Amino acid sequence: MKKLLILAAMAALILSCGKKADEYGYTVKNNQIVYNTPARPADQQSMLGFAADPIEHVRIGLVGLGDRGTGAVGRLPYVDDCTIVALCDLYPERVEKGQKILESLGAPRAVYEYSGEEGYKDLCQNDDIDLVYLAVPWYLHTPIAVYAMEHGKHVAIEVPAATSIQECWDLVNTSERTRKHCMMLENCCYDFFEMTCLNMAQEGLFGEVVHTEGSYCHNLEPFWDVYQGDWRMTYNKDHHGDVYPTHGIGPICQVMNIHRGDKMDVLVSMDTDAFSGMEAAEARYGKGNVDHYDNGDNTMTFIRTHNGKTILVEHSVVTPRPYDRMFQIQGTRGFANKYPNEGLALGGKDLRGIDSEDLDAEDYMSDAERDKIMEAYKHPILKQYETKAREVGGHGGMDYIMDSRLIYCLHNGLPLDQDVYDAAEWSSLVELTEVSINHGYMPVVIPDFTRGEWNKLNGLKLY
Amino acid sequence: MKKLLILAAMAALILSCGKKADEYGYTVKNNQIVYNTPARPADQQSMLGFAADPIEHVRIGLVGLGDRGTGAVGRLPYVDDCTIVALCDLYPERVEKGQKILESLGAPRAVYEYSGEEGYKDLCQNDDIDLVYLAVPWYLHTPIAVYAMEHGKHVAIEVPAATSIQECWDLVNTSERTRKHCMMLENCCYDFFEMTCLNMAQEGLFGEVVHTEGSYCHNLEPFWDVYQGDWRMTYNKDHHGDVYPTHGIGPICQVMNIHRGDKMDVLVSMDTDAFSGMEAAEARYGKGNVDHYDNGDNTMTFIRTHNGKTILVEHSVVTPRPYDRMFQIQGTRGFANKYPNEGLALGGKDLRGIDSEDLDAEDYMSDAERDKIMEAYKHPILKQYETKAREVGGHGGMDYIMDSRLIYCLHNGLPLDQDVYDAAEWSSLVELTEVSINHGYMPVVIPDFTRGEWNKLNGLKLY
Repeated sequence: MKKLLILAAMAALILSCGKKADEYGYTVKNNQIVYNTPARPADQQSMLGFAADPIEHVRIGLVGLGDRGTGAVGRLPYVDDCTIVALCDLYPERVEKGQKILESLGAPRAVYEYSGEEGYKDLCQNDDIDLVYLAVPWYLHTPIAVYAMEHGKHVAIEVPAATSIQECWDLVNTSERTRKHCMMLENCCYDFFEMTCLNMAQEGLFGEVVHTEGSYCHNLEPFWDVYQGDWRMTYNKDHHGDVYPTHGIGPICQVMNIHRGDKMDVLVSMDTDAFSGMEAAEARYGKGNVDHYDNGDNTMTFIRTHNGKTILVEHSVVTPRPYDRMFQIQGTRGFANKYPNEGLALGGKDLRGIDSEDLDAEDYMSDAERDKIMEAYKHPILKQYETKAREVGGHGGMDYIMDSRLIYCLHNGLPLDQDVYDAAEWSSLVELTEVSINHGYMPVVIPDFTRGEWNKLNGLKLY
Repeated sequence: MKKLLILAAMAALILSCGKKADEYGYTVKNNQIVYNTPARPADQQSMLGFAADPIEHVRIGLVGLGDRGTGAVGRLPYVDDCTIVALCDLYPERVEKGQKILESLGAPRAVYEYSGEEGYKDLCQNDDIDLVYLAVPWYLHTPIAVYAMEHGKHVAIEVPAATSIQECWDLVNTSERTRKHCMMLENCCYDFFEMTCLNMAQEGLFGEVVHTEGSYCHNLEPFWDVYQGDWRMTYNKDHHGDVYPTHGIGPICQVMNIHRGDKMDVLVSMDTDAFSGMEAAEARYGKGNVDHYDNGDNTMTFIRTHNGKTILVEHSVVTPRPYDRMFQIQGTRGFANKYPNEGLALGGKDLRGIDSEDLDAEDYMSDAERDKIMEAYKHPILKQYETKAREVGGHGGMDYIMDSRLIYCLHNGLPLDQDVYDAAEWSSLVELTEVSINHGYMPVVIPDFTRGEWNKLNGLKLY
């Protein structure tokens, strides 16, 4: 009888998995990979432009006190109108380390401490918390975020917010049903060059933005130890595709008004074999102990938008090469390129009174001219936060600006800079690129997480 | 009766066209585009490693005296062991202009002059010519080259050598049958940074070369007038795809030993709509007079090789942006990047006694260090020609080196630097990228023009 029950349970599990997979799964149609997009359930509403009630003082519960979470503990005390009230990690000693950081900054110790495998559940059930801030391994992002929203919390999630299309939909559906914010913490959207270029793009200095490039090329060799239980190398070992796309794609999607007048239609991805990847894994686990390393040394992705623009994304984390977090804008009137040097090429008109007669879009302006123009077009958000950002730091200040904006919008009851559809769209590349590669570089139709509402907002607005 | 004959002739024509299209045409199989590759006909032999008998003094017939051909007239008199003996153009006045250039350089006037639509035929039938040098519009490259080889001449063809897969095979088949050289004049293979990087790659300084990038980003706005009868803009108007891929792909294929130990297996291409393209055409033909402009402002192509490496190629000729003829090498031990600055990042060992302890592959070395390393690893061909090359000029000297190498190899009875398979492979992107785009960015299996012999030569050798 017991055996029968187990069999029945297994069958039910298999059936439910099967159903789940189908619901948001893909099929091959007309030489394209096409995902199912079920209609929005009746108990959900669009989160486009969503703003929650203002929160006078944002009480933060921070889950995950590894490298990234510890950084957040060191930054958030500098942000107005919020307090870290709860700290949570698998290990209690890390929680105490977080408390010590708070003390060293003259901030109050967190009132609540949680640890162990299920500590996050207790944290999410705590009514004295408004926002759950997640800095856990990738595979825990969505499960904990969903749990937090189900328990009435807004969530902010490190990148990528999700690692599968199913998880992307889990975030969207839960946010839409619970009416809770779900913001991915894509810090690169707040870097100085990117923000000012966004401002210039919105003012039309690049003309029509036709093609963009974003990338994450960073040899992680010195960092593999940081990831608890080797989760990151394990993920790379087991997956093809651009498994870390959001630093590249995020700032670019903001410039291109993705789901705010345009949308990503289709992508194709291709990767190399794992030459350096295999070397890195063997250096870690010993020669002969690594039977596979799937993630290519270099992964490239093309994306085409509904309005006929393209995006190139590159990922390279095992090759010893100069760091390159490319952010490139090619417009009909101007050009910007972040690496290896921040370069700007703009036409000579309308540059806010700056003497720009000799400038044109075909030649990089001098560094001095660039600095003048960047100053003149500095994004208002940078103006507000930059002094303190450079003081507090966190990737040169952008992390602090990101945290500040998150709290500012919650405090004032404004839409957040990055909504749940951004989180889903940018993170969706993790699975979509792998599926393209696994099908011989086939085109993949990118799911529309707004379910047809990508053209309702007229451009990105940061409130 | 007359009607019947016409019908029969039309049917024969349709059948023969059908046959031709099928013979080297493509079909969609398993979500890929696959081209037919018929077996090599019995009267043809492989041209791999082919060397013709030495030619004591190379007698050149030059066809096409527009911008590019006129440049060649100005360079070839500086090259040893050759003479321009014949000049040919549609217009006799251009032939006379060519003669004047020869005179002004103290070179003898060409003995033979040809003009008119069929002047090239008379030139090809002239027994006093060894080499036909073609600088005609793209669509005439292959037809004239085939005619020249059929009439016993070696040919050198401006880029791209062919504009369709059928033409690529026409070049290969004719060269194999007639045993005549067919070299595409890909001058970028002779640029200084590229040649020295090739030398460093062959000496192993980059380790395993895993990923490369090559591009042609050059706003042609000031040049559209150059192309007789607007052939270039017309071609761009009527075609999607990377219609000018060889400057990007050529130097890279040499580094990657394509058909000399590796081969290009599959490509995917994607383009933008024609935002600036339409603007450029309307500026030329008047608003309202342009009903289509197919070529995207930006076209990107991914290529994967048999050995698991990748190549990225970009094409952008209507966008006002800084010139970028990217040549990038990502290896397991080193990195090179040509634009916007020539950058080198190499490990600190074995750099020919140069003090390189502080160098590593993750940081660009200083310009001074780079110059020292470039000097130490200068390609022997550069050493031989550079002084005179910089004096004669032609895209900074690379055109002169290219011409010199062509004549040197013919004079000494050596294999040429670029063989007919290079010409076919590099030019094949013109059609293959368009077909990928026209099929919704589908992967295209790249024809193997060596017919299975891509692994017979062990690396590129410049004799």
